[in-house]
Formats: sequence, structure tokens, C-alpha cells
Amino acid sequence: MKIVIVGGVAGGASAAARARRLMEDAEIVVFERGEHISYANCGLPYHVGNVIPDEDDLLVQTVKGMSRRFRLDIRTNSEVTAIHRDRRTVSVHDRKNGRTYEESYDRLILSPGARPFVPPLPGADLKGVYTLRTIPDAAAIKAKVDAGGVKRAVVVGAGFIGVELAENLQARGVEVTLEEGADQVLPPLDSDMARLIETELEKNGVRLILGSSLQSIEKTASGLAVTAGDHAPIEADLVALCIGVRPETELAKAAGLRLGFKDSIWTDSHQRTSDPHIYAVGDAVQTWNLLDGKETLLALAGPANRQGRLAAGAIAGLPHAFPGVAGSSVVKVFGLTAAATGMSEKALLRENVPYEKVYVQPLDHAGYYPGARQMTLKLLFSPVSRRVLGAQAVGPEGIDKRIDVIAAALQLGATVDQLSQLELCYAPPYGSAKDPVNVAGFVAVNVLDGLSRQIHWHDIGCLPENALLLDVRTPAEYEAGHIEGAKLFPLDNLRETLEELPKDRPTVVYCKVGLRGYLAERILVQHGFTDVYNLAGGYQLYEGVRG
Amino acid sequence: MKIVIVGGVAGGASAAARARRLMEDAEIVVFERGEHISYANCGLPYHVGNVIPDEDDLLVQTVKGMSRRFRLDIRTNSEVTAIHRDRRTVSVHDRKNGRTYEESYDRLILSPGARPFVPPLPGADLKGVYTLRTIPDAAAIKAKVDAGGVKRAVVVGAGFIGVELAENLQARGVEVTLEEGADQVLPPLDSDMARLIETELEKNGVRLILGSSLQSIEKTASGLAVTAGDHAPIEADLVALCIGVRPETELAKAAGLRLGFKDSIWTDSHQRTSDPHIYAVGDAVQTWNLLDGKETLLALAGPANRQGRLAAGAIAGLPHAFPGVAGSSVVKVFGLTAAATGMSEKALLRENVPYEKVYVQPLDHAGYYPGARQMTLKLLFSPVSRRVLGAQAVGPEGIDKRIDVIAAALQLGATVDQLSQLELCYAPPYGSAKDPVNVAGFVAVNVLDGLSRQIHWHDIGCLPENALLLDVRTPAEYEAGHIEGAKLFPLDNLRETLEELPKDRPTVVYCKVGLRGYLAERILVQHGFTDVYNLAGGYQLYEGVRG
Ligand SMILES: Cc1cc2nc3c(=O)[nH]c(=O)nc-3n(C[C@H](O)[C@H](O)[C@H](O)COP(=O)(O)OP(=O)(O)OC[C@H]3O[C@@H](n4cnc5c(N)ncnc54)[C@H](O)[C@@H]3O)c2cc1C
Ligand SMILES: Cc1cc2nc3c(=O)[nH]c(=O)nc-3n(C[C@H](O)[C@H](O)[C@H](O)COP(=O)(O)OP(=O)(O)OC[C@H]3O[C@@H](n4cnc5c(N)ncnc54)[C@H](O)[C@@H]3O)c2cc1C
Ligand SMILES: CC(C)(COP(=O)(O)OP(=O)(O)OC[C@H]1O[C@@H](n2cnc3c(N)ncnc32)[C@H](O)[C@@H]1OP(=O)(O)O)[C@@H](O)C(=O)NCCC(=O)NCCS
Ligand SMILES: CC(C)(COP(=O)(O)OP(=O)(O)OC[C@H]1O[C@@H](n2cnc3c(N)ncnc32)[C@H](O)[C@@H]1OP(=O)(O)O)[C@@H](O)C(=O)NCCC(=O)NCCS
Repeated sequence: MKIVIVGGVAGGASAAARARRLMEDAEIVVFERGEHISYANCGLPYHVGNVIPDEDDLLVQTVKGMSRRFRLDIRTNSEVTAIHRDRRTVSVHDRKNGRTYEESYDRLILSPGARPFVPPLPGADLKGVYTLRTIPDAAAIKAKVDAGGVKRAVVVGAGFIGVELAENLQARGVEVTLEEGADQVLPPLDSDMARLIETELEKNGVRLILGSSLQSIEKTASGLAVTAGDHAPIEADLVALCIGVRPETELAKAAGLRLGFKDSIWTDSHQRTSDPHIYAVGDAVQTWNLLDGKETLLALAGPANRQGRLAAGAIAGLPHAFPGVAGSSVVKVFGLTAAATGMSEKALLRENVPYEKVYVQPLDHAGYYPGARQMTLKLLFSPVSRRVLGAQAVGPEGIDKRIDVIAAALQLGATVDQLSQLELCYAPPYGSAKDPVNVAGFVAVNVLDGLSRQIHWHDIGCLPENALLLDVRTPAEYEAGHIEGAKLFPLDNLRETLEELPKDRPTVVYCKVGLRGYLAERILVQHGFTDVYNLAGGYQLYEGVRG
Repeated sequence: MKIVIVGGVAGGASAAARARRLMEDAEIVVFERGEHISYANCGLPYHVGNVIPDEDDLLVQTVKGMSRRFRLDIRTNSEVTAIHRDRRTVSVHDRKNGRTYEESYDRLILSPGARPFVPPLPGADLKGVYTLRTIPDAAAIKAKVDAGGVKRAVVVGAGFIGVELAENLQARGVEVTLEEGADQVLPPLDSDMARLIETELEKNGVRLILGSSLQSIEKTASGLAVTAGDHAPIEADLVALCIGVRPETELAKAAGLRLGFKDSIWTDSHQRTSDPHIYAVGDAVQTWNLLDGKETLLALAGPANRQGRLAAGAIAGLPHAFPGVAGSSVVKVFGLTAAATGMSEKALLRENVPYEKVYVQPLDHAGYYPGARQMTLKLLFSPVSRRVLGAQAVGPEGIDKRIDVIAAALQLGATVDQLSQLELCYAPPYGSAKDPVNVAGFVAVNVLDGLSRQIHWHDIGCLPENALLLDVRTPAEYEAGHIEGAKLFPLDNLRETLEELPKDRPTVVYCKVGLRGYLAERILVQHGFTDVYNLAGGYQLYEGVRG
């Protein structure tokens, strides 16, 4: 058996290693266009920021080490330029000596990844304009910063990579403008959760320009000038384009392989393409959302690694199949962490899936143990099946844990009822007897059980004229800021002051995070108030979202 | 509806609050024997250690605040001394004025908790001998330490509470001996994982005496002397008995309620006892292991809180039922965290459940991002159903997250195949593209698929005479320490040195953690070696367990 692999990083290197473990006598050839294999793409922004100062630390495996251990024929600086399916060969361009040759295969695994999208706009190809995908890309940006030549930078695109790069440039003393065409940062999040991250970016000195698409980049006397939307041009010494990635599918397309979503490579759940001798994995392939089965792309390292591993297994005859993707992701943004799994609210709206949502803002661990910090957790679920559809969280501590737990639950088909009953580990330094995940489950079940009716931050602007808005916090909290038009009815006196209120008008209660609002709601409803709503996430979310 | 609740802390207070939310017009009376309600039992060891210096911080709710907010009739210093099921009343002893009276109920909720077990041994009742359950208990220990009167302490019992108390006393400058009858600390862990914690305790100056049961405590001229097993008496100024807890079931027993496992209160999955008007929750009740359905006890705050909440719901007519327990627990021990979920290996052996186990020792986050730390993760699973049966982890970082994810998976019925495919959040500060949970899943699936055959640390002593033991690490690693009788065959030269080895003898390979051993195993097997085993967990676990 001769296995040829195109691409030697996440998916390709994983496939090569696993193929060797399963097929000791196979001939395995890995072609990699670049200089390096098996490197930590995900560490590149931190290399720029000197968090990982040494470039060598980015190499998870070296060509030498990996060749020896796994008896691989690894050829770097070697670009595969064509697939000849009829004779089962690939054409390879050796970039070192300019030679092109053919190499045969019994099975071919494609893991070419995705390339940064560079929009066809004036100046996108100017010197000083960078993208970030490879070690040389990172080294170039870092060298320029190291040399002291970068006072101001514009990062275009506020996805994970753009945000990480902005933080790392800022940490190097660069004045950073983060410019984004959408009206929010971090697309996997909904705008309400993203807002918390936007505040953190601004608090840390990153200038944020949202909702303005890149128009052009121009050379000026002192450097570059970036024009976005109708903003005045922004001067910069360095511009980084982090506008997303596009699957590298030219090879597959030219070879007539079936393509999928957004020109990605189609595969079955064993990573096999439309040609039974060719497998494909990673950023370049179409995958599917395991919740609704719809085609999607997901350019993340976990799926790429696991698909590479699966493709090798499939070639060796193992039965394991890829289960689809949930879209679990996490990013550090200065002092905060943002993480998400499953479908976002905007995706649910787009796909027309019925959903409900709740927000809770619990502490990451018991309040009486030092260092407890508040998080915001948004849970999306189906009012029909009661199943968990997605979750997002932002906060300084314990975020990745809660989203990982919900990610696992979601992938295993959990309902919010099951979430509310999950028995998680509790000791004071780590959590609470009722973990944030449970509390999100409680609130969701209460909504489904009809114990609570919610209203959301985006509804406050369009309440009916005769609606009553009750702030059930303390007078001090009310004084420090409240929603316009709200009347103060502190929770702990509510039963005594009920009589002052009409029972038949739409009544919205709110507190700081929603908990006391819920208590007030329960009191009002059971005292004969006919139309009561609790503001989900309370004043804190409402204010936080409005910025 | 009049609801009477016995016990005002975890289960009782949760039931009271939820009952009010569901039944605004109910009359709710809470009887609490002690001075405080709704306090953080779990914080008590940290109060002794001055981590939570202020006693008031332990009060999650006060009598005043909770009475007002939830319109409760809370009576502290009030002990319920009898239940009169025939006339639906309880007898209450008012400890303040010595009066005893009857109070009627429509529904009664029992949440009396569990009391520390005090063995009937000489001296267990001496002055200077403490138990730790309530705020006054903690205050008494703390006062004695504050006063400077405690140079040496003996903590008897190395469960969670004993270990936490030992650490907190040590932190106060007390010389601590931790004495335990079993041959390991922390019963939810298996002895191999517990060993890692024992090393940490000793490294931090706690003197550990295992496998020696308490015999007696005596008064000496200078303080107390504790005799355990056949050890010489240990001098101490303070002795704390943390030998486990016993359900407080005298009331229930006297009232003729059906009892369950180890004299606990029997309930159905709606927390209803054998008397349809009486519910019971928390440490006092029998519950069941959700994996095998067997009766068990679990004295933890999460289940107590959720059961209290469910009992109130059941009384209000809600359908939600308790799903049983997994036994998820976590504890901080100096610089390490230990956590567990599901069944331990010793429980599986005891229950005669067929199982397999794997050990992995991955980093908590990507190695190239600063601060990555190694953990040890043990996964137990069924070779029949392939389902996850349990997991335990010990390490400095990321332990609670991995066990919570596996706890969720286990409760949702996941197989190791599903574990290997879980899509968890990955960015360099938080994890790896293949999360430790995935890697544990990979290794387990490899074992089930017959790709790897393991041998365990406890088998090394009894290998057949003709067995070959191969150390596949580097010469430097080998020199620094290896298993007696092992021959050095470094992995990266293995293919070249194969010819020196006989193919038909039992061959055990090992490396540091098991990964390279697995690679070596794959090479050997595919080169015709007929009887190869990989040492699970490698030399590190082997050495770690032997201590
Ligand atoms: C800056 C940055 C940060 C990231 N951070 C994260 C993160 O925190 N978390 C996360 O989950 N993911 C992150 N990712 C994404 C992750 O790195 C990718 O999802 C993953 O690397 C995809 O694996 P792959 O094998 O499909 O492609 P790649 O890892 O990109 O490998 C593809 C390789 O194929 C080579 N190649 C392409 N075409 C050819 C050809 N014709 N001939 C020969 N070689 C070819 C390329 O040179 C490339 O080296 C990040 C990516 C970047 C760039
Ligand atoms: C030191 C310590 C540390 C702990 N750490 C953890 C931890 O880290 N994680 C974890 O999950 N769990 C921990 N626990 C266990 C947890 O606190 C218990 O599981 C939980 O409190 C049980 O709740 P409960 O309502 O059943 O009993 P409790 O919370 O003990 O409440 C029972 C109450 O009932 C009262 N009572 C009893 N009988 C009567 C009567 N006849 N009349 C009136 N009142 C009565 C008692 O005075 C008591 O206040 C810890 C416990 C202790 C003591
Ligand atoms: C490192 C890389 C080459 C993969 O190599 P790999 O050998 O498959 O991966 P690992 O070193 O993690 O080894 C995992 C193997 O060891 C096994 N293993 C791990 N720990 C083990 C243990 N303690 N005992 C036994 N086996 C163990 C696993 O099961 C797996 O084998 P399998 O796939 O046959 O089941 C590839 O992931 C890579 O290039 N990564 C860097 C690039 C990248 O991912 N970039 C994006 C993220 S920054
Ligand atoms: C605190 C205690 C009295 C319980 O009171 P509680 O009111 O039920 O608990 P919380 O304050 O967490 O409130 C939770 C309620 O608010 C709801 N809630 C929480 N956040 C919310 C939000 N943002 N929006 C709407 N509702 C919210 C929950 O759904 C829950 O209501 P439900 O039970 O009706 O579903 C009880 O747990 C206790 O005494 N704890 C301390 C003792 C103890 O547990 N010791 C052992 C561990 S140290």
C-alpha cells in the first residue's frame, strides 16, 4: 500500500502518524509546500506577541524526528500541482530545484487546509500588508515589530485570529485598530455576548471599528492608510488581513472531485471523497452540523486532527466515522475568555429553527471562597424537543469548562432537563453546589414549564404603551442606574407593596441578573397578576449589550 | 398547604426557597437545630485555614434575609424530636427556652443531613477531640489554633474533609499527622491515583499514616496521644475525627419510615418516602448509582441541593425526577487537584462488573503555550457495552474540567468511541487540538479494537519468567531510572534493532507515559512479534504508584 498525503500540518501529519501505526508496511509520502510540517498554527499570534518567543517551540514535530519515528518520506518545499486520477499519480513541484515530477499512490489523502481570504481591493497586495497562516507569516510580522518599525497597526477582521493578533500586537506596545465589516466581533458569538468582548478590547486600548467594510489600502509618505466604510483613512505601519479563510480546493476541483459547501471538498463520514482512492480532511472539506445535519465548514484544529486520524483508519479498514461538528470554540481576549458551542441565536434564526434562550450570570466558583468571578452564560434550546442547541459564555474564569461540559452534553443529545440534573464536581475552589451549567438548565426548564415568561433586552425598546416596568432591586442599585421609565419596587418589600399595582397590565420586572426578577415574577403571578415577564439577564445584560 | 422542613442548610433551605417560588400561598416552617441556616459546610475547612477568615462569609443566607425574601417561618435552635404520622405533626424542642411543642404539617420534608462518625473508642470524647460539621465546630477548632495552642494535630480519616482540614491546619503552621485506617487517602479514588495525592501531602509536610486504624486517644501531661494500629502514640494538641458520616435517621426510624441502604431513609425518585406526606433529601437518604442502579449513599452538596429543589417541585406537582448519582467529586490538595466521577476500579471489582482501564498523562493545554502542566487521567470503561464507567484525574491544572466533561458524558450514556470524538473547545491557553478527554478515548478505543494490549503497573511484579521487558525511551531516560530487568531499545531505533529480539516470547514494552510504548507495540506486532504488551501509564505511573 502506498499512501500519499498532501499537506503536512494538522490533518496531514495526524493522518501520516496514524497510518504508520496502523500499517507498518505501507509506503507513506507526505508533500508539504512550506518549509515546516506539524507546526502550531494556533500559536502564531502568540509568537508575534512574544508569549512564545522561540519559533522552534511552534514545531510540534520536526521533519527529521517525524520521518525517523514514523518512517515517513516527508518532502517539504514540495507542492502538489495536479492529481491524475486515471493513473493514480500526483504531479509535484519541488520548489528547491524547480523540478516537477509525478508520484504514484494507492490512496491519496488531501489535507491542504485553507488560505487567508484576501479581498480583491486596491492595495491589498501592498508591502506592509500581511496575512497570518504560516510560521514565515508570523516571523515576518514579528520581525517588523521587533525592529521597532510598528507604532500603529490595523487588523482587518475580528474573528478569532484577528482578535488574538490585535491583543498580541497591543501587548507589544503597538497602537491597534481592529476593523470589522460585521457589526460585531467573533462571529460564533451572538452580538449580545460579543458586546462583552468588544468592551474588553476597548478597555485594553484596542480601537474598534465595526460595521465598516474594508475599501482600500493606500501607500502614504509615512506608511499605509486603510479606508473602511465611510471612515477617514486610518494610518498604519502594518496592516494584517484576518478576514477569514477559503478552503484550498484548486487541486481537488481540477481533478474533478465532487465539491461541497462553498467550494470545499465533499467527503462521506469516512472522509472519502467522490473518488474511492482519495480521502480529504481538515479545513478544506465540507462537514456537517451534527444538530441539523446541514452542510458547513469549520476551520478548527480539533476536527482537522481527528479527521486526519479517521482517514488513516478508514484506509486501514477501521469502521469509525466522523460524527459531524458542533462548532466548539474558545478564545482568550485580554482578561476574558469567550467560548461557544452548537448553534448561535443568529444561526437558529437564519435556519428557521424554533428556539428559546436564557441568560445566567453566576460565579465561576463558590462566592465565599476567594477569587470568585462572575460569568455570562447564554443557553439556546429547543422548546419542541427540549434539547440543548447551543451555548456561549464570556467571563474571566471557568468559561472553557462550562462550554466544554455543555458541548459534550449537546453532542450526546442532552435536553435542558438533563443539563439541570448533571452531577458535576463541586468543592469551593472549583464551582458551586449548583453549577452554572445546572442553573442555566434550571432557568431553561422553568421557561419550558411555564413557571417563568421572559422578555429580552432587545424587547425593552418596544414595550406596549400601557406596560409597567418594575425594578425590583434595592434603592441604591436603582439610584446607580436603571432602565428609563422603571418604577422601584424592591423585591424584599414586594408583597407589602403589591396593592399599589394594577394586576391586568403587561408587567415587566427586572433586577441585576434575572434571579430576583424571577422571584418577583413568581410572586406577582401567584398574586393574580395576569401578564408578567422577567427581563432575561437583567439590567446588567441590558446595560452590557447597550455598551 | 402547610410544609414543614426539618434542617435548614443545603437540602432544607433549597427546598424552602423552591417551595415558596412554586407555592406562594403555602405556609412554610423550617426547623433547624443549630444557630445558623444556609451555611457553607464546604467552606468550613477553609475557615479554619483563614482562607475564609470571616465567619459571616460562610452564611449564604441569613435567617432574617431568607425569612423576609421567601416569607418563611424559620425557627433555629429548634430540634424536631418526633414525627407523629397519624396526626401529621412533629414534636419540636425549642433549645432556647427548653419548651417542646407540636407543629402540624400537610407535607413534611426531611433534610437532617449526616453526622460525623465518632467511633466508640477510648478517648474519642476527650476535650481537644473535634469533629467538623457545623460553624460552631469550625469556630472551635479555629479559636484553638488562633490562640496559638496548637503545635501538633492529628487528623483521623483521610477522606475529603480530613485532607482539606489537614492542608488548612498545615497552612496555619501546625504540624499535621493524617492518620487513616485504609491503605490510601481519598476513598473515591483508586489507590494508584490516590498515591499521587499522598506524595503531594508528604511533600508539603503532612505526615501520613495509612493502613492503621485508630485505637485510642489518651490524655497526656502536655495534651493528647493518639494510638493507631501498632504505631507508637502520636502526641497532639488537637485531634480531629474525620472518619466519615452517618445519615441522621433516628427521626425517620422512630416514625417507622422505610429505611434503605446503611440505615438511610428510603425514597422514590421524587424524594417521597414510604409515607406519601413525607419527603426526604440530602445526606440522610438512600440514592442509587445511575450506572448500575445499585443503592448507595452520597454525602455531597450538589445532590442535596437538587433533591431539596425536586422535593418542593414534587409537592407542587411537577413531574421532574432525580436521575440517580454518578459520584462526581473534586478536592484541592495543596498544589494538586483530584477529581473523580462514576465508578472506581475497586468498586467495579467489588461489584463484579467487567471493565477495562487506560491511563493517559497529557498536558492541560498546548505544550507550546506557557504554563502547560501534566495530568494523570484514568478512564474506566466497559469492554462489553463500550460505555464510560468512571474516570479519575490528578494534576495541577485543568482537572475539574476534564472530569466534569467525562461526568457529563457518562451520565448521558457515552461510549468511549463518543468520548474520542467529542468536539471540545481548543485554543492554546485552554487545551489541545486533541483534548486529554479525546486522547483517553483514543487509547480506550485502541484497546477495544485490539490495536493495543496493555499490562498494568501491578502486573510487572508477576511477569512470566521468559518475558522480555523493553524500555523504549532514550538512553538518558533509561539511565535516570528504569524497571529492573528492562533492556533499552529506544523507539527511534527500534526498527533497526528488531532483529536482536526473539519474536515468540511475551514482550512488555514501556516508555515514560505509554505513548511511545504504544508506538513500539504497533511496530513489534506488525513485525511478527506474537505476544506484545504495553505498560499502561508507563514508567511514570509505575514509579509514581510505588512512590
Ligand atoms: C493564526 C491561526 C490561529 C489559529 N488558532 C486556532 C485555535 O486557537 N483553535 C483551533 O481549533 N484552530 C485554530 N486555527 C485553525 C487550525 O490551525 C486549522 O483548522 C488547522 O490547522 C487545519 O488543519 P489542515 O490540516 O486542514 O490545514 P493546515 O494545518 O493549514 O495544513 C495544510 C498544509 O497543507 C499545505 N498545502 C496546501 N496545499 C498544498 C499542496 N498543493 N501541496 C503541498 N502542500 C500543500 C499547506 O502549506 C499547509 O501547511 C488557527 C489557524 C491560524 C492560521
Ligand atoms: C467540612 C465539610 C466539607 C464539605 N465539603 C464538601 C464539598 O467540598 N463538596 C460537596 O459536594 N460537599 C461537601 N460537604 C458535604 C455537604 O455539605 C453535604 O452533602 C450537604 O450539606 C448535605 O445537605 P443536607 O441538607 O442533607 O444536610 P446539612 O447541610 O448537613 O443540613 C442538615 C441540617 O439539619 C439539621 N438537623 C438535623 N436533624 C435535625 C432535627 N431533628 N431537627 C432540626 N434540625 C435538624 C442539622 O443541624 C443541619 O444543620 C462537606 C461537608 C462538610 C461538613
Ligand atoms: C502531532 C501530530 C503530528 C499528530 O501525531 P500523533 O502521533 O497522531 O499524535 P500524538 O503525539 O498526540 O499521539 C497520539 C497517539 O498516541 C496515543 N496515545 C496518547 N497517549 C497515550 C498513552 N498514554 N498510552 C498509549 N497511547 C497513547 C493516542 O491514542 C494516539 O494514537 P492513535 O491515533 O493511534 O490512537 C499532529 O497532530 C500535528 O502535526 N500537530 C501539530 C499541528 C496542528 O495540529 N496544528 C493545529 C493546532 S495548533
Ligand atoms: C442558597 C439556598 C438557600 C438555595 O436558595 P435558592 O434560592 O434555591 O438558590 P439560588 O439563590 O441559587 O437561586 C436559584 C433560583 O434562581 C433561579 N435563577 C438563577 N439565576 C437566574 C437568572 N439569571 N434568571 C432567572 N432565574 C435565575 C434558578 O432557576 C433557581 O430557581 P428555581 O429553583 O425555582 O429554578 C441553598 O442552596 C443553601 O442554603 N445553600 C447553602 C448551604 C449549602 O448548600 N451547603 C452545602 C454547600 S457549601
